[in-house]
Formats: sequence, C-alpha cells, structure tokens
Amino acid sequence: MQKGIFITVEGGEGAGKTTVVDRIERTLKDRNYQVLRTREPGGVQLAEQIRDILLHTKHIEMDDRTEALLYAAARREHLVKKVLPAIEAGAVVLCDRFIDSSLVYQGYARGIGVEEVRSINKFAVEHHMPDLTLYFDVSPEVGLARVQNDQVRDWNRLDQETIDFHKKVENGYQSLIETEGDRIRVIDADQSVEDVFQQALSIVEEFIKGVE
Amino acid sequence: MQKGIFITVEGGEGAGKTTVVDRIERTLKDRNYQVLRTREPGGVQLAEQIRDILLHTKHIEMDDRTEALLYAAARREHLVKKVLPAIEAGAVVLCDRFIDSSLVYQGYARGIGVEEVRSINKFAVEHHMPDLTLYFDVSPEVGLARVQNDQVRDWNRLDQETIDFHKKVENGYQSLIETEGDRIRVIDADQSVEDVFQQALSIVEEFIKGVE
Repeated sequence: MQKGIFITVEGGEGAGKTTVVDRIERTLKDRNYQVLRTREPGGVQLAEQIRDILLHTKHIEMDDRTEALLYAAARREHLVKKVLPAIEAGAVVLCDRFIDSSLVYQGYARGIGVEEVRSINKFAVEHHMPDLTLYFDVSPEVGLARVQNDQVRDWNRLDQETIDFHKKVENGYQSLIETEGDRIRVIDADQSVEDVFQQALSIVEEFIKGVE
Repeated sequence: MQKGIFITVEGGEGAGKTTVVDRIERTLKDRNYQVLRTREPGGVQLAEQIRDILLHTKHIEMDDRTEALLYAAARREHLVKKVLPAIEAGAVVLCDRFIDSSLVYQGYARGIGVEEVRSINKFAVEHHMPDLTLYFDVSPEVGLARVQNDQVRDWNRLDQETIDFHKKVENGYQSLIETEGDRIRVIDADQSVEDVFQQALSIVEEFIKGVE
C-alpha cells in the first residue's frame, strides 16, 4: 500500500471491541503491516488538555452543545497530529470511536440532533472520513451483562433506564448505517468472541486486499 | 422593558470601542437601566478554562479549525451561563465582540471560510443572535496609529503587512454588513471620540425606544 487505511471501530458497551481489535492488531503486525492503534485524545497534548476539561468538570453543569464542540475540537487535533501523518506514512490506523460516536451519543441519544452534531464534526474532520468502520452490534442485554461480568441470564436485574439508553444508542447506530451505506460494516457481536474476531478480521482482510 | 436587549460591539483595533462603550454604559446606568457589560469568556469558569488553552498553547502549533471550535465552545458557555440569564432578567447586555469577530478574523482573514465558521457558531449560539450590533468602522491608518499612541501623520511608518491584515479585517466586516442587513449599524470611528460616542449613543437610544 502506498497510502494507509483509516479504520474506525464503533459499538455500545460490552461489545468486545477491545479484545477483538487487540487480536486484529497483532494479526496485521504479524503480517508485517504498519499499524497505529489509537483512540481520542491519543496522547496528543492539546487534545489531552481538552479532555481534561471534559472529565474534570463533570461535576459542574456543562451545556450539551459546549461538550459537543469540545469533543469536536479534541477530534480535530488528534486527527491532524496523529491519524493523518500515520495514514500518509502507509499505516493501517485502527481508531477506537470517531465521528459516529458523537453522532449517536450526542446527536441522537442526548437529543441535540444528528444533523446539528454532524455539521460541527464535518467542520472538524473535513473530507477525512474513515475508509472503513466496524460496527460491533451487541444487544443491550448481552452487552450490559458482559460489562457487569455477569451471566447473560441475569440481565433482567439490570436497571431498566440503562437498558433504554443502550437501546437508544443501538437505534442511533442503525439509522446511521442506513444513511452511511457501505462505509459501515455490521458485525454480530452477540456471537462468541472467537466468532466476532473471525468475522471482523475477514472484513478487514477483504478491505485491505481491495486497496492493495 | 420586560425582556432585555442583546447588543454586541465589533470593530478593528484602535476603533475606540472601550472608551465609547464605557460612556454608553454609564449613561444607561444613570438612566436606571440594568446593564451587563461583558466580553468572552467573562468570568464563566468553564469558558475561562477553554480560554487558558487558547492562550497558553500559543507557542505550540494549534490547528486553525481546532482554535475556531474552542472559541465557539467558550462562546456557548458564556452565552448560556451569563448573557441569556441577564437578558431574561431585563438587562441591556453590552458584549465586546461576539459571533461576527469569529466570522471575520477566523473565517475571512485567516481563510477557513466564512460559511464554515458560521456553521459551528450557529451550533453554538442557536437563535440567540444579537438584537443590535455596533460596528466601529475605523480606517486601518487611523486605528493603528491610535493603538501605537502615535500621531496620525506617522501611519506610513507602520508595517505594511499589518496594514494589509487590518484591511482584510475591514473588508470582512464590510461583506458581513451586506449580508446581515439591519442588525449591524456602522459607526464612523475615524471621527473624534466625542462624535463617535454621540453617534453610538443615539443608535442605542433609538433602538431601546423601539422595543420599550
């Protein structure tokens, strides 16, 4: 590959993203691909400072739109200082969460509006959209049970409000998939971790072959 | 007045804004109006923290779009926490610089693009645009000479690049005035400070009478 590939990873809590992407990273490195594994703010100084504001002022009432603008600012800086140079150098970039997370969590689930949140994120990323996005589709029941290190059979003890919020997030991703078309590939994350890994890896391999 | 009035003050350096708005503030208070004199970040904690990032990282290379997003975030917080409550309480708000400064300095003079910068600022301010904007229109020669505490006759010793930038800023404001119509009122700031004050005060008085 002359130029790298920009792959983002999306999905709700407990979808097994971290474990699976760890294995994809190792597999690609074993095959001598240059890989950058990252997530915002990713050690970029200015983006870390913005992140500090987002985290340390959690106890203060922060306006939802201020928060969305700060996430977009941190995204911009991480993209420009870390992701784009790696792509330019020919790396496969695996980035945990990107623009879609803001559209779903802030735009859809928090109710600011997807198109409004998209406008500030388009300002932040310009034309640098991911080449490929892996969406780990986990049902709220399975995902939350995994997060709690619980057995799946215990999901009915989980707080109904939490379930409702996760369903909202899932609906947000589903409506994104309908509008974003081919870029987002859906992985059934209710499967075993081994099966999730195999499905994700074959999508990544197929994509890389297509551009090589 | 049941509800307050949101007035913003714009213009290049050396336009005499501070002196003139000081006198408008005193005049309105003498007439028993409730007045909030402010400027971003205006003592709003979160907006101050954002401002710290903007100022303290000046030595680091900050991306222009990151900077514009951070200004929009600080603007949002100052608007929601300070300006809107004052308007709700019936005050005349006099705010030194607001959305137009970002459109002109970042969108126009720095070259990000006015419409692009407008989109993130519309996200930040929503429908809360100023009721009235006083634009202090000073020629670069007069403005820069005032800033340097110089005589006007010495303006030709000023750096040509500085003059060029200020002309760009002036052109930016001029094209805004054409699109924003009635909201922005132009004050000839090449006049004596006394004349500038009288012109500005009569515009403000007339506007207040119109809404009372």
